[in-house]
Amino acid sequence: MLTSRSVLRALALAAALAVSTQAPAQSAAPRRANAQLPAPTYKPEFGTMWTFDAPPIDYWRRTYGFAPDQKWLDHVRLASVRLPNCSASFVSSRGLVMTNHHCGRECTASSSPPDSNYIQTGFAAGTLADEKKCAGLYVDQLQSIENVTARVRAAITGTTPAEQAAQRTAVIGQIQTECNQATKLNCQVVSLYQGGIYSIYRYRRFNDIRLVMAPEGDIAFFGGDPDNFTYPRYDLDLTLLRVYENGQPYSPPDYLKWSAAGAAENELVFVVGNPGSTGRLNTIAQMEFLRDVGYPASLAAYKRSLAIYAELAKTDTSAARRYQNDVFGVANSQKAVTGYRAGLLDTASMAKKRAFEQELRARIAADPKLQAQYGGTFDAIANAQRELASFNPQLRYYSFGGGSTLMQLAAGLVRVGLFANAPDSARLAQYRGPGLENIKKQILAPTPIDTAFERLAIAAQLRAAQSELPASDPFLRVALGGQTPEARAAALVRGTRITDPAVRQQLVQGGAAAITASTDPMIVLARAIDPLNRTQLARANALNAVIATNSEKIGQALFAAYGTALPPDATFTLRISDGLVKSFPSNGTIAPYKTTFYGLYERSASFDDKDPFKLPKRWVDRKANLDLTTPYNFVSTNDIIGGNSGSPVINKNGEVVGLVFDSNIEGVSNRFIFSDAVGRTVSVHSRAIPEALRKMYDGARIADELQGR
Amino acid sequence: MLTSRSVLRALALAAALAVSTQAPAQSAAPRRANAQLPAPTYKPEFGTMWTFDAPPIDYWRRTYGFAPDQKWLDHVRLASVRLPNCSASFVSSRGLVMTNHHCGRECTASSSPPDSNYIQTGFAAGTLADEKKCAGLYVDQLQSIENVTARVRAAITGTTPAEQAAQRTAVIGQIQTECNQATKLNCQVVSLYQGGIYSIYRYRRFNDIRLVMAPEGDIAFFGGDPDNFTYPRYDLDLTLLRVYENGQPYSPPDYLKWSAAGAAENELVFVVGNPGSTGRLNTIAQMEFLRDVGYPASLAAYKRSLAIYAELAKTDTSAARRYQNDVFGVANSQKAVTGYRAGLLDTASMAKKRAFEQELRARIAADPKLQAQYGGTFDAIANAQRELASFNPQLRYYSFGGGSTLMQLAAGLVRVGLFANAPDSARLAQYRGPGLENIKKQILAPTPIDTAFERLAIAAQLRAAQSELPASDPFLRVALGGQTPEARAAALVRGTRITDPAVRQQLVQGGAAAITASTDPMIVLARAIDPLNRTQLARANALNAVIATNSEKIGQALFAAYGTALPPDATFTLRISDGLVKSFPSNGTIAPYKTTFYGLYERSASFDDKDPFKLPKRWVDRKANLDLTTPYNFVSTNDIIGGNSGSPVINKNGEVVGLVFDSNIEGVSNRFIFSDAVGRTVSVHSRAIPEALRKMYDGARIADELQGR
Repeated sequence: MLTSRSVLRALALAAALAVSTQAPAQSAAPRRANAQLPAPTYKPEFGTMWTFDAPPIDYWRRTYGFAPDQKWLDHVRLASVRLPNCSASFVSSRGLVMTNHHCGRECTASSSPPDSNYIQTGFAAGTLADEKKCAGLYVDQLQSIENVTARVRAAITGTTPAEQAAQRTAVIGQIQTECNQATKLNCQVVSLYQGGIYSIYRYRRFNDIRLVMAPEGDIAFFGGDPDNFTYPRYDLDLTLLRVYENGQPYSPPDYLKWSAAGAAENELVFVVGNPGSTGRLNTIAQMEFLRDVGYPASLAAYKRSLAIYAELAKTDTSAARRYQNDVFGVANSQKAVTGYRAGLLDTASMAKKRAFEQELRARIAADPKLQAQYGGTFDAIANAQRELASFNPQLRYYSFGGGSTLMQLAAGLVRVGLFANAPDSARLAQYRGPGLENIKKQILAPTPIDTAFERLAIAAQLRAAQSELPASDPFLRVALGGQTPEARAAALVRGTRITDPAVRQQLVQGGAAAITASTDPMIVLARAIDPLNRTQLARANALNAVIATNSEKIGQALFAAYGTALPPDATFTLRISDGLVKSFPSNGTIAPYKTTFYGLYERSASFDDKDPFKLPKRWVDRKANLDLTTPYNFVSTNDIIGGNSGSPVINKNGEVVGLVFDSNIEGVSNRFIFSDAVGRTVSVHSRAIPEALRKMYDGARIADELQGR
Repeated sequence: MLTSRSVLRALALAAALAVSTQAPAQSAAPRRANAQLPAPTYKPEFGTMWTFDAPPIDYWRRTYGFAPDQKWLDHVRLASVRLPNCSASFVSSRGLVMTNHHCGRECTASSSPPDSNYIQTGFAAGTLADEKKCAGLYVDQLQSIENVTARVRAAITGTTPAEQAAQRTAVIGQIQTECNQATKLNCQVVSLYQGGIYSIYRYRRFNDIRLVMAPEGDIAFFGGDPDNFTYPRYDLDLTLLRVYENGQPYSPPDYLKWSAAGAAENELVFVVGNPGSTGRLNTIAQMEFLRDVGYPASLAAYKRSLAIYAELAKTDTSAARRYQNDVFGVANSQKAVTGYRAGLLDTASMAKKRAFEQELRARIAADPKLQAQYGGTFDAIANAQRELASFNPQLRYYSFGGGSTLMQLAAGLVRVGLFANAPDSARLAQYRGPGLENIKKQILAPTPIDTAFERLAIAAQLRAAQSELPASDPFLRVALGGQTPEARAAALVRGTRITDPAVRQQLVQGGAAAITASTDPMIVLARAIDPLNRTQLARANALNAVIATNSEKIGQALFAAYGTALPPDATFTLRISDGLVKSFPSNGTIAPYKTTFYGLYERSASFDDKDPFKLPKRWVDRKANLDLTTPYNFVSTNDIIGGNSGSPVINKNGEVVGLVFDSNIEGVSNRFIFSDAVGRTVSVHSRAIPEALRKMYDGARIADELQGR
């Protein structure tokens, strides 16, 4: 299999960059350079999201004097599981699974009896029989990893990006299907290092998952939006589930035992979980685009959204409650993106990244063969990003954005009509194959329309377009129709009849002819925007394909040069990250490594018990039961990101010392360039969980099980 | 008195700048512009340190709907007192005075019995008889203010800065002496608005002050250096003193009653106290000098000092304790100066300041007469600052600095010798008149010399000089004598005999001849540095005189233009500042308006009760007594700075709701440009004080007195 042209190219590259030519297969040792050149060393700015097939044993030994063996690693891997959107772990011999409150939220809500809501009241099953089935929830356990780079690359023989993409998709599908059939496992090919290597991840899936315990939302998410992404923190962000097999609790051969002491200051701890997405291998050009164009646009849009919700709340007292989740979602994104961007605005971090890129480019430039193959990649990406930036306002505003449901419905109606009899190749991607019918269903669903919101959202979007696009812009002409944004939005919302599902039904049934003939103002507008939008999309898609192709090449060059000394970007697959339990400088003083239950009562009292610092009744009534000095939350320098929610924090003995649930605001900027100076992972301390179970939730049964009593 | 030439000039200026020509005498209304031009409005960036003879009643009425009458103002003024370095207030009918723990520290320490230290143990007098006399402490109560600008200005008829300065000093002395004799009060002429106006402040002085209660230093200053200048905070920074008269408790006609509820969120509160020094009227050139030259140099020096202490602590375990206060002092300055500089680095604030200065300069430039008189002032200051910056390294290093006691002793010996028979005019200022004898006394005192510290301090100073001065610099030649800084420092410390007071005595007695003949290496070095140092000092003094003269002119122009709509810079005289009790955005979330006793126990527990988060034994043993929900510290938007320590915070009824003890780190940057966005005054909540007295200190007697029971 190591005979194809592209593999040979990769070998030549690796030799030229003076690193190991061993296949990056399962191995406990990171790849090393050969003797002639300095070994590629661990680079802290790339973080510590290590894969289980390349744990940096030498680095750990050097740094911490700890070198786990394969048995330790296998045990930890098998005890760690993945939920559809979160991480989790087996924490008892009878299949208890620990994750975050927000990861189990859907099950907790849907398990509630009709007259109550467990999100508000909390829930703790008194007996096994009380545990509630979580419909649709599943748990994936990673059985093995195999490097399939050679096979993937051998199959890619085409010369155009499109041909190559099709071949890649085909061979990946083939590998997965073969694996599924051969192993009866759930197999997924993962592209690491932007395509630098491909690995197949084989999962055992458990489908019978039941809710054992979830505290009140008000304690799980104490501090709400303000405290989100911050520390010191006081959250019991916990759900306990149980895996069943054949109607009985499943007994996992590998589960994490509970640490009696829990996380101690300066202790070495590991986070095992599934980080979703990072951008540490991005080029400077990609980062600068996000910093200067992409993120500022997102932040401006969040600001507009929040202003709309605030405006609605002024006149409609129920709006605040109705839009609470939306406001929280936007505020959360705003905080996260502000944090991501903060990392890119940090000149010291960016200088480090720039130096790294210059070094890699110099190494490529020094070899004519490499230069021929990879020398153009960075500039190709930079040029594509520059061009994307040049029409970014058009791409954003020649659209149906701004949060208006009516705009979305109108766009769907127009396109469903126009695409009805067109071949797939002539349709936008999401309208291809079964996509068309799905979109039809969404259009015909009886979606409620909040006309007050629609007026504000459309007007805000038009105002923003007006301020960013030149006055002569064709979009502004059709979108505004000579009116002010406010008048135009009011007229559109007043004049349209697509608010009525029956009208939408007629339009869908009438096909292209009905759409073309419609005089409904929203349909007329969507018809006019559609071609403008598609032109911009096509242009952006072509440029993004250039970026993808060149990113993959850079990924190959990077992996060949540094091997697994750099962990790959996050891919929502299992990683193990080392770190220390550690306080950090904050707010002119020190943020302590842990908080205690005292702090929960302090924060509530200091806000006069006002929302979102209101304590659930149980936590007021039973306060005297609690040992207030019990450690509650703590921080460590582990490297995490969205997807790590629910990850266990373990000590050297593989025991649970905590449960990851957040990052501090300083850690959010680690998305592109990692630093443990002030960024921290925030976890529930393992001692808080049995204390709360026993003293607050009459949960001795569960606490005993966790603590192996 | 309004007939002298300079007063006429001032009147002309005021007319030209279109503001009131009323003398800025005692009045409850701020000065106003005449009708033709827009009224000079309150400018938030100049803060709210109002004088009692020009309270901004209209502004308060407009902003808060509260307009205190003269009786309220007089009562509050008379209930507020000044300690030598702090602020304080009468808080009972029997003369209890409330101030900060650190303001009473000297009395608390010196009142301790030989076998104990009240700073460590805390103290609460069980009876009147147990109250401890504070030797040397006094309390000043402001009786009245009178504007004496006209008289001061009339006396200044000279044409050179030197003549004017002498005349100013003379007339101020004369006014004070007359007042002292006439009133038997302690009278001080205060220059406000950099000489824009002069006021005489008349104080009644109380000399019999006794210690009533001081808590343990560990609770008064809980959180130590890390938490200093931060919030949330958990400090009982309190001393209670009592004023005695004729051996009996003094009954002040005006004292502040205790508020039962204490400070509530968003409540209007006033801080009444004596802010020490601000630089809000400084020109942009002055601020830029501090930002770019002065403060960076100070910060570098603090860093060197801290490195020396850290180095000493490595090998000498007792050094950490010995230098604890010094380290704290330096760390405190470092935090403060970092904060001051942060304000100057804030581009938005500086832009506001710049716009203000441009407006004032434009108003001056628009009138030829004003232009002739004041047009040159800003540029004169800018030029002087630029020149000061040009030789700032020389000014700093051609000296005896760096914290070395030996260098200071050598400098003193050399100068005492050389100046012994010289006339005052040929001496440096501090060696004139009785100064010479004072310095002699200091030189001959048996000061302990820590040779390890001396070696490090001299070497650090020489290293710093080496890195900042050109290699050919004459100072480096004499100071290093061709050696490395470390070798040179070691040789100096090893070789000198001035460590011995007897040797110093001989040198002093030997006069100029002994100094000239000395071969002691420290004396030889100091002899070589002396002329270099004096040249730099002379140059700097001349430039600083230019700045002072022009600052006074700018102060006159400013006062004439804006009157009391801008409060004058702080002068350690009584001010009243309005503000709101208010939370603020911090650390990605909200810092609550108050903390409670819960937070004290949280912060201690979260640091595992380690120093400086260690609780005094009493606070551990008696915890159960305490209502942990009692408000402990709180924040408000009042405008304070060093000197305000111990100021009462009062509500609209003139009742005590708190005791000022600090600023948050964001508030430190208010020194030059005030903003209440995130800067906050930090105070002990009035409810915490009786709670602690009753539950912790067996102090019901004192609590009852405070609460008027």
